This record gives sequence, structure tokens and C-alpha cells, in this order.
Amino acid sequence: MLFRLDNAVKRRVHALKRLQVQCANIEAKFYEEVHELERKYAALYQPLFDKRRDIVTGAVEPTDEECEWHSDREEEEELAEKATIEDAKKEEATPEEDPKGIPEFWLTIFKSVDMLSDMLQEHDEPILKHLKDIQVKFSEPGEPMSFTLEFHFEPNGYFNNAVLTKVYKMKSEPDSSDPFSFEGPEIIDCEGCQIDWHKGKDVTVKTIKKKQKHKGRGTVRTVTKQVPNDSFFNFFNPDEDSEFTLATDFEIGHFFRERIVPRAVLYFTGEALEDDESVSEQDDEGDEDDDEGDFDPKVSLHLALPFAISDHSLNL
Amino acid sequence: MLFRLDNAVKRRVHALKRLQVQCANIEAKFYEEVHELERKYAALYQPLFDKRRDIVTGAVEPTDEECEWHSDREEEEELAEKATIEDAKKEEATPEEDPKGIPEFWLTIFKSVDMLSDMLQEHDEPILKHLKDIQVKFSEPGEPMSFTLEFHFEPNGYFNNAVLTKVYKMKSEPDSSDPFSFEGPEIIDCEGCQIDWHKGKDVTVKTIKKKQKHKGRGTVRTVTKQVPNDSFFNFFNPDEDSEFTLATDFEIGHFFRERIVPRAVLYFTGEALEDDESVSEQDDEGDEDDDEGDFDPKVSLHLALPFAISDHSLNL
Repeated sequence: MLFRLDNAVKRRVHALKRLQVQCANIEAKFYEEVHELERKYAALYQPLFDKRRDIVTGAVEPTDEECEWHSDREEEEELAEKATIEDAKKEEATPEEDPKGIPEFWLTIFKSVDMLSDMLQEHDEPILKHLKDIQVKFSEPGEPMSFTLEFHFEPNGYFNNAVLTKVYKMKSEPDSSDPFSFEGPEIIDCEGCQIDWHKGKDVTVKTIKKKQKHKGRGTVRTVTKQVPNDSFFNFFNPDEDSEFTLATDFEIGHFFRERIVPRAVLYFTGEALEDDESVSEQDDEGDEDDDEGDFDPKVSLHLALPFAISDHSLNL
Repeated sequence: MLFRLDNAVKRRVHALKRLQVQCANIEAKFYEEVHELERKYAALYQPLFDKRRDIVTGAVEPTDEECEWHSDREEEEELAEKATIEDAKKEEATPEEDPKGIPEFWLTIFKSVDMLSDMLQEHDEPILKHLKDIQVKFSEPGEPMSFTLEFHFEPNGYFNNAVLTKVYKMKSEPDSSDPFSFEGPEIIDCEGCQIDWHKGKDVTVKTIKKKQKHKGRGTVRTVTKQVPNDSFFNFFNPDEDSEFTLATDFEIGHFFRERIVPRAVLYFTGEALEDDESVSEQDDEGDEDDDEGDFDPKVSLHLALPFAISDHSLNL
């Protein structure tokens, strides 16, 4: 538009743009306070997540009252099956039919969610059976903004770590060279951890045998060489050569934080997968700018806190 | 998954689902606090928005310092044109070249944004030239959650109202019949206002002439009849017959609240339109579940507060 405006008007538009920069700076403070609010609520969710972990690992057996559940779909089968504490006790008599807690709870989630199953290799599966819990920890006030994913494992035959971590560092201030692109906190970097693998158990490398011919003498010898191997556990040590581009890595971190950790059981049962699909379908059908008139009247709008994906390369 | 689980495990999964319902209730309180935070920040933005309105209407002429602006793209033309307060003063000498404030500021935005231009009719344009400001007001704490769009007009020859309003009522609690679908506050209803049109100026109706034939006598007479007419101003009085389905209406309300009002100047200059387009392209390319590996490494993830569109009809 500007090219059609005379200079007096153009000046005033520039004044509005300066005001807009001030708005972006206020917005940055708003997002810092949202982060504070998320820390506060993380503490409120934690007792429920601890209880979840105890039930998943079998450390605690929930009471009948804690297990009361009726959904339309399940009611029928439940009436027939009458799953009660008595059944659970009966099954305790036959140990081979008495699984501890909810076996393969997290592994099942890894297998169900496309984003994770794409990384998952067959050799990862027995290791992930030992995953007890995934937790999200937020940075303390005053520290640079970040969140940490903690993967808690029971003692296992693969590595010594009780917890594997991945830290996502964030930035929540407008870029001075491009303040209008600011849309809230942005993941800017991440850092995995060293896995202390038992000897010969590191699934992120494989040993290959290679025949080498001596150039002068023409003799052939076989050498062994360690090369990188596809594995979910590369998530903790991303490097340039691995399949994890930074963007995918960020997206996975976000997905753990916003979806899987807060509502793990719904990914285990598959209920959350249906929801995600219906949201994607909506996204495909209509974007903000070109979707008038063709909406289902039952569609409703939600205020959510998802990460939006924005391509900064356009502004660089 | 459930059909493959034995009863003892199924019980435990039900216990996790009960915990998940408790999480949804905590989440509802989180979103209430986010709403509070938005109210607090609305008060911080307001002085900047008031200044914007004063510059747009010409009530205030910004100082040279307030107009300093350099972007790469504009620098060159600006060096040639040297838009300063002196130029502005010179132009005041020739009144026909001295526009007041930023003429057609809001009308230009209405024309630029597809979602609004689709509603805009030629007869709406002279009316929207009198639009001085659009404001968002949040409900007070303790009141049912809502926000109100206020369209402030200067005195004009079309209607007597100084302000046209539209209230969007929200709900921020999980539905007891489907608690897991809760993703944050949801717009559930909206209410426009009565426009006190000057006689013969109501653009939302048109008068048509109709020839009526008397069945018995066979005589023909011409009758006039008022019928609904396409207009942006139907936004304040949506009815079943109008083009505004509830979902579109909600989406427009959201777009005013989250995008246009907070960053109007960027829609005036077109800068925000480019951003919206690049976000849409990203949305089309990758959804959360199926986009590993094919990302631009420069893509970054943002924490934003947009409304997600969710189709509840799937769960009804």
C-alpha cells in the first residue's frame, strides 16, 4: 500500500509501526507470564502424573472406586466381563496371566504415534519396555527459558542411566531486525545426554566387517568398523549425519511436552489419535483466509496453546 | 487397544482415564488464568492502541522522532523522498493534498483480508470510511467468560450508533460427557446489536418492486417489499438465512481479536498478509503426525495462542 501514500500519511504509518514494535515487546512479557503459569500448573498436575506412573509400573493397585469407568462404547463389553478387583485378584492366582501394572504402556504409545514409530527400530523395543515414565520440567524463573524431557527407566540390561534427558532451550523476545515476526516463545536449541551403554548394547552403532585389500601386496584382510545405526536413542545425541533435522527434533520435543506427557493414556487407548486426525482434517480443509461459507455449523473454535510452525527462512 | 487387554489391566487403564479427567479439570482452571492474563495485558496495550486511533483519525500528529523508521525495503525510496514533518507541513498549505490522519485505514484492512473482503459490498465502503477504531473488551473476573468487539464510528450519515458491538460468549470447562475433547476455551454463542439506521440508509435490506396480479379481477398492481441484502453489517445481526454460519462468524470474531486488532498496521501495509500466507503453506505441508524428515532446517516452532478448529460433530 505504501507506494500509493503521500509522505504525510507515510510518516503516520511509520509512527504506527513504532507503536507495533512496542506491542511486540509487551507480548514477549505476556508469554513469559504464560510460561510462569505453566510452571505453576505443572506442579498441580504432578501428583496425578505420579499416580499414573505408579499404576503403570504396578507399584500401586487402584481401588475399585478409582477404576469406575463407563463409556457408551465399552459399557456392553464391561457388563459381560465385569472387570472388578475380584477378577484382578483371581488372576493373581495364575501368575502367567498376572501382568504387573500396564505392560508396555509407553512402548505401545511409541508404536501408535506416527512421529515416534517412524524413529522406532526393532532393537529399540525391548529397551523401551523398561521406560517407566516421561516427565516435563520447566526452567526456574530468572533462568533462560527452557523445558527438559526426562525419560525414567527401571534398571535394565542396556544402560546404567536411570534418567535420559533432553533440554529444549527457548527464546521469548522479538528479534530486533524483524520484530513483527514474533509470535511467542520459540525453540532455538536442544541438548541430549550421554547414554552409559553396557558393553555391546549400544543400539545407536553397529559393527560392520569390511574387507581391505593391501594396495602394494594385494593381500586381503577383514577389519571391523563401528558405524551409526538407526535408533530412537539417537534422539539423545543428534548429529549432522543423523535423521534428526533440528526442526523435526523441535517438533518431537513439542509433541512430547504438549500432547503425549499430558494425556498419555489417550495415546495408549488410541482416543487421542482420533482427535489429532480430526484436527488435521480440519486444517486441510480451511485456513484463516479462505474458508468462508463452507463450514459445518457444528464446528467450534477452541483457544489452545499449540506451537505454530513458522518458516523464518522467508524473513532471513 | 483395550480389547486385547485382560481385565486386571483394563481396570488400571480405567484408573488412568479417571486421572485424565482430573487433569482436564485442572487444565480448565489454567485457561481461566490465561484469560485473566489476557485482561491484564489488554490494559497494557490500550494506551498504544489509543495512540494508534489518534494518529489514524488525525487527532494527533506524531513527532519526527515518533516516525523514525528504516526497513531495508523502504530505505531507498525514503532517501529519495525524505518524508519529514516539514513535508507534512508544506502539504498542509495545499488542502486537497492534506489528508487527515490515515484515510481509509480500516477500510483498506477490510479490503485486504480475504475473510473480510468476501463479506464487503460496494455499499458498505462509504460507511466503513467512518470507522475510527476497533477494540476488544474482555469479560470481568467472576462474569461468564466472553469478549466483545467494539466498532467505533465517527458521526456519519448512515446510523446514529457511535459504537457497534458484537459479544462472543465462551465456555472454558470440559464437557462431562466428553471430557477428553477439552482443548481450552470455546466460543459457544455470539450476539450482535441493533443498528439505528437513518431513514432509507439501511444497507442490510433492499426494496424490490413486485407486480401482483389479482386472481379474480386479473388486474395488475406494483407492490414494494423489503428483502435482506448482502452487507458486512449483517455481521451485527446474523440470522438463519444470512451467509453467516455460526462457525464462520466465530472464526471472524477470533480473527479480529487475535490478529487484526493487535496488529492492524501490518494488515494495512500488507506485511501481516504475507506472514499468514507463509503459515498456511506450512500447515498444508506438514501435520503433527506425518512430517518427519522433510523439514527445512530453518523452520522453527513457536508457542502461540491461536484458536484451533476442532470438529465436535465427530464426537456428538
